[in-house]
Amino acid sequence: MHHASEILFTLFVVFVAAQIGGEIAQRLKLPGVVGEIAAGCAIGPSLLGWITPEQIATGTPLDVLAEIGVILLLFAVGLETRLEDLKKVGKVAFVVGVVGVLVPFGMGSVWAHGNGFDWDRSLFVAAAFVATSAGITARVLQELGALQRIESKVILGAAVIDDILAMLLLGVVVSLQGGGSIDATHLLVVLAGAVGFIAVIGWGGARVMRWNSAWLDKPLGPHSPLMIVLALCLGLAWLSTRFGLAAIIGAFLAGMIASETRQQHTLEKQTQPLLALLTPFFFVVTGSKVDLHELASAEALWMLAVVTAIAIVSKFIGGWLGSLSLGRRSATIIGFGMVPRGEVGIVVATLGLAAGVFDNRIYAIIVAMSLLTAMVTPPVLAWLLKRNAGGRQIEVPDVRG
Amino acid sequence: MHHASEILFTLFVVFVAAQIGGEIAQRLKLPGVVGEIAAGCAIGPSLLGWITPEQIATGTPLDVLAEIGVILLLFAVGLETRLEDLKKVGKVAFVVGVVGVLVPFGMGSVWAHGNGFDWDRSLFVAAAFVATSAGITARVLQELGALQRIESKVILGAAVIDDILAMLLLGVVVSLQGGGSIDATHLLVVLAGAVGFIAVIGWGGARVMRWNSAWLDKPLGPHSPLMIVLALCLGLAWLSTRFGLAAIIGAFLAGMIASETRQQHTLEKQTQPLLALLTPFFFVVTGSKVDLHELASAEALWMLAVVTAIAIVSKFIGGWLGSLSLGRRSATIIGFGMVPRGEVGIVVATLGLAAGVFDNRIYAIIVAMSLLTAMVTPPVLAWLLKRNAGGRQIEVPDVRG
Repeated sequence: MHHASEILFTLFVVFVAAQIGGEIAQRLKLPGVVGEIAAGCAIGPSLLGWITPEQIATGTPLDVLAEIGVILLLFAVGLETRLEDLKKVGKVAFVVGVVGVLVPFGMGSVWAHGNGFDWDRSLFVAAAFVATSAGITARVLQELGALQRIESKVILGAAVIDDILAMLLLGVVVSLQGGGSIDATHLLVVLAGAVGFIAVIGWGGARVMRWNSAWLDKPLGPHSPLMIVLALCLGLAWLSTRFGLAAIIGAFLAGMIASETRQQHTLEKQTQPLLALLTPFFFVVTGSKVDLHELASAEALWMLAVVTAIAIVSKFIGGWLGSLSLGRRSATIIGFGMVPRGEVGIVVATLGLAAGVFDNRIYAIIVAMSLLTAMVTPPVLAWLLKRNAGGRQIEVPDVRG
Repeated sequence: MHHASEILFTLFVVFVAAQIGGEIAQRLKLPGVVGEIAAGCAIGPSLLGWITPEQIATGTPLDVLAEIGVILLLFAVGLETRLEDLKKVGKVAFVVGVVGVLVPFGMGSVWAHGNGFDWDRSLFVAAAFVATSAGITARVLQELGALQRIESKVILGAAVIDDILAMLLLGVVVSLQGGGSIDATHLLVVLAGAVGFIAVIGWGGARVMRWNSAWLDKPLGPHSPLMIVLALCLGLAWLSTRFGLAAIIGAFLAGMIASETRQQHTLEKQTQPLLALLTPFFFVVTGSKVDLHELASAEALWMLAVVTAIAIVSKFIGGWLGSLSLGRRSATIIGFGMVPRGEVGIVVATLGLAAGVFDNRIYAIIVAMSLLTAMVTPPVLAWLLKRNAGGRQIEVPDVRG
């Protein structure tokens, strides 16, 4: 009984903190997500301590709720993304994904080597600079109703490419760090698996749904289409982790498949309350992971500033260069849209800490950098999008049902 | 990464099992909830083993999701329950609650004493016979769209009384078992606290909302009324555990308060997808808790049959006697509606096992009894309600904003 009381209190505190943070941010004309992350930082271990480090460790209820939250968020984003739209921006998204990984990886490893890491370790540190966290950007695009813009499609497509490359890169640096050599065949198999998974599920799933989605209404339960696509979402989220990809990639694919159904509009409406309840857990938990104590020295703060600047600039350049064919304004939006790192940077940092590659300070700095990029992006992106309001929308003839 | 994969797989399996179980049950003209509990039993540790005992222990992610699920369920039920309606049936509900606790407690302790337990232990065993689990009945009433019937109001009101008494009783038997004496003053304080909490929150909250609920629309977020009432739901669920009550009582009160707002209809709609995603976890986890191995002997099965029969008959008699003033048909429905034990019986059994009052077999039998009552009730209740379709509805003039 006592335990139930404790966890309920935590859920209540996290949820209310997210609402208050989001409300304050919106009153300050900032995206709500910034306030939710800041609220997490405030109630987290390093400030108020209302959430303890044990409560946000991997596999805890709060961590799982956060994971479900970001999965549902990317599912909802997928639900507003048609495969046809992605195809149209396919080439640009591919280039943005590739260049947007190479530039930060290059700049990150040069910086790390310049700071006394040997090359193997430098590559490991640089891996933390690489992966874009689609969750933050997706939430901003959604809050601003900008998901149908061409820039949004490029960002989402590039985020999928980005995740594949980041996964491969992480495999390489972990193997190098462990003293192993790079097994090119193995890497090719992993790459083929990931690409094959996305292609088969995305393309095949969308085809099936476009061909016939009436069967979703067959079950007797009152919410049958929703239940089936939620099952699909959880199933594909799990399956994508089996292919070494982030769970959110599978969730995004599930949403994209569901967007081809006749019931898409209803599903979109029904997903909103799910996001409202669960995504705050993701953003608050993300925010609560910064350890401010490790950063409480001028030297650490300076290092953080440099690392964050490199992370932002390198990713921006990568995305900007990759999408210049769409014009400078769009390229600027896309470049900034790719900046947030969020959870993937934190995963790399955690692996690095466990492998003894980093000390606590570098760990705290990489985590803080991931979060700073996540907090800096939303206001800038919101401003850029508003300045270019009414930008190019993607128009696809509606071929559903 | 690996851990995330494992938990996602479990979430997927639980969710899909619930859908399949619910679908099969509905095709067999049974309430869906029966199928969900049976699915939990099937994939649980004692049959397929897709869920391990560690995964459903207290405080695990699955356990917390189940808890959130049942909290949201009772919140949704509260959302369809006006305070005025409960007041109208207040007296009958009170009598049903009291008699429905006394009869099972009396019959349970006599049975336990007859089976070789000393009186202190017998009272402990009997406590497991007492508390009705409102979740199961509420779900059936909701599935059948019967929440506006007078019998439903009596059942829900009685469940609140029932929970207060069960809590007091549990305090008494635990104290007796620990060799302590009964501190009447302490009990009175606990009772006053619980009654005061319910009265102040239920009555005061409903008044405030009826007086003015426009402020719910003030925040800038796109889902502000929903977010505020969800925060209220989590907050009151937690607060009610602080007063020794079940979390679902607080959630029910939160829903009842929200039912007085102008936004009640929207909230009802928005709550449905939340239930769809989360309540299956509650019913599957509940079902997975039976340990069939401990019951694999003729003697154990016989004991289970007797215990279950006593549990059903005693509760039915209590509810039936208490509500006879409404006529025999209504009394029959109310009597059966009070039968399911579910999680409270399991809590008592777990306490008993931890305190060394029970052995593993009695524990398994009490848990199985709780679940059997939960599985037997829905079909009978559905049949009784359909036979009496169009029964007395409660009509309350709409005084909302």
